[in-house]
Amino acid sequence: VTTSRGVDTLVEQALAGDQRAIARLITLVEDNGAEARAVVAALYPRTGRAHIIGVTGAPGTGKSTLVNALAKAYRRADRTVSIVAIDPTSPFTGGAILGDRIRMQELAGDRGVFIRSMASRGSLGGLAWATGDAVKILDAVGYGMVLIETVGAGQAEVEIASTAHTTLVVTAPGLGDEVQAMKAGILEIADVLIVNKADREGADSTAAALEAMLDLDSRRGSWRPPVLRTIATQEVGIDAVIEQAEKHFRHIQASGQLRAHEQQRAKDELSNVLRQGLMRELLARIGQDGYDALVDQVATRQLDPYAAAERLLRDPPFKTAGYPK
Amino acid sequence: VTTSRGVDTLVEQALAGDQRAIARLITLVEDNGAEARAVVAALYPRTGRAHIIGVTGAPGTGKSTLVNALAKAYRRADRTVSIVAIDPTSPFTGGAILGDRIRMQELAGDRGVFIRSMASRGSLGGLAWATGDAVKILDAVGYGMVLIETVGAGQAEVEIASTAHTTLVVTAPGLGDEVQAMKAGILEIADVLIVNKADREGADSTAAALEAMLDLDSRRGSWRPPVLRTIATQEVGIDAVIEQAEKHFRHIQASGQLRAHEQQRAKDELSNVLRQGLMRELLARIGQDGYDALVDQVATRQLDPYAAAERLLRDPPFKTAGYPK
Repeated sequence: VTTSRGVDTLVEQALAGDQRAIARLITLVEDNGAEARAVVAALYPRTGRAHIIGVTGAPGTGKSTLVNALAKAYRRADRTVSIVAIDPTSPFTGGAILGDRIRMQELAGDRGVFIRSMASRGSLGGLAWATGDAVKILDAVGYGMVLIETVGAGQAEVEIASTAHTTLVVTAPGLGDEVQAMKAGILEIADVLIVNKADREGADSTAAALEAMLDLDSRRGSWRPPVLRTIATQEVGIDAVIEQAEKHFRHIQASGQLRAHEQQRAKDELSNVLRQGLMRELLARIGQDGYDALVDQVATRQLDPYAAAERLLRDPPFKTAGYPK
Repeated sequence: VTTSRGVDTLVEQALAGDQRAIARLITLVEDNGAEARAVVAALYPRTGRAHIIGVTGAPGTGKSTLVNALAKAYRRADRTVSIVAIDPTSPFTGGAILGDRIRMQELAGDRGVFIRSMASRGSLGGLAWATGDAVKILDAVGYGMVLIETVGAGQAEVEIASTAHTTLVVTAPGLGDEVQAMKAGILEIADVLIVNKADREGADSTAAALEAMLDLDSRRGSWRPPVLRTIATQEVGIDAVIEQAEKHFRHIQASGQLRAHEQQRAKDELSNVLRQGLMRELLARIGQDGYDALVDQVATRQLDPYAAAERLLRDPPFKTAGYPK
């Protein structure tokens, strides 16, 4: 357990650029204990400076290679970069660590780059939550660019991507039907569309298909996502991606969308934190035994979950010993 | 809007086997309004009879074809089957409906089969919630088998799969590295492992790799997942899958794991419903203006989300007009 004093020290070290301290802070928000709140409280006022870029796409599109190429290009332009890779391996295994190691070989020793993989522990929403807090930390300690890499398939990933100001959706030629179908969905969150592996057969038709889908999309506002081609393994086309991402950021700044985005994020975060806090308080008042008895009644189908909840919510302050029939 | 009386009628019709009424009830739980609660309240006591089977796997493994083959085989054995397909297309588009139509052609006109695709609307967790309620409806109206089909990548999908008593994890030879890595994760939720497209090159080594991973897994209890081979397009190997799924169900019945599973489900559902209810109550007490003012302070970084939540939670019953500084 890290004490509150420990958190203060870590925050100080992290602000001075100590990467080990930054990593520790992210672990604290992953653990989601009392320290997580102290970390966010200390760093939240310093957030709001980074350009947060989501990079999403189906397996096999070459997302990770593209993210690495972007990071290198940003470094050449003397910007600081952090990468949060949402590990698709599973909510269970230690794939995250392996991913970190492979990437680190390439970008090791550069203090202007920070790389972190995150895998989920525990319940739905936990990963999105921890990722949001990790991004706050990286923003607050001064990384100019924060890249969040996700697999585009799941709802959780889409929610994680919603943290980003700018979302790059990566595709590649010849990935098969089901993957193409997925693409149709994530098209709607794309600010920049990338056809990676553009030297492969089918790149032209993939790009044309994307343009055709954009033509059909009537919900589009003032920004039409450009369709760019890259060969990430050869670092081809990377500068255009960087240029368009920056252009998009300036666009949402000017249009007021950035402000609306921040407002929505604040709303979502507050309601998440509140839900958790309310539940904790309710449990403290009922006591574990009373709650367990009610769970039993739901499990044995004497009560449905909604009726059980209504019973708890109707009768605060829940002072009865045992439970009302 | 469906009235409470309307819900009663729909429930009656659904219990009599009216598929249109069943579809309407599922739409009501998707909409998650007051009617959703009425639907669950009416049907919850009748749940607990179906065998709920999750079928998950990466894109390209042939999950949907396998699910269709399973449904046909169950029908031949005179069991009633429902399929809930979690649409991987996106939380945004109408791919769900298309999926239904394609499947319906094959199994159309059989009243012993019910097929429904579900896509997410709204927040993280919403889809898992609606799926859980849809499964309750299908269980309650009498489908002996409920198959839930998900893409294995995301945390949301894993959570949805946790509704199932038995989880089939589908793989296929030659899907590439990233997909293989995903497989490592979902291995841990597998009760039956299936190498589909078993006539393809590499099926032997895929099956061998799975067995090797099972050998290494020390957390396994009394059930070792069998590794089965299928060619779903030709309906080869389907009976063995059905046999092992049933064997697994009898195993968890006998071992007490089924009861523990029901207990855990009840706990999760109650806490979900409670969180939502508590939040609704809090908002009603604060009023929208007070809440919005606080969101503003978070968005402009005058307050961090945790501090804002603590302020709300510390000072019930939130009767002050405006907001304390």
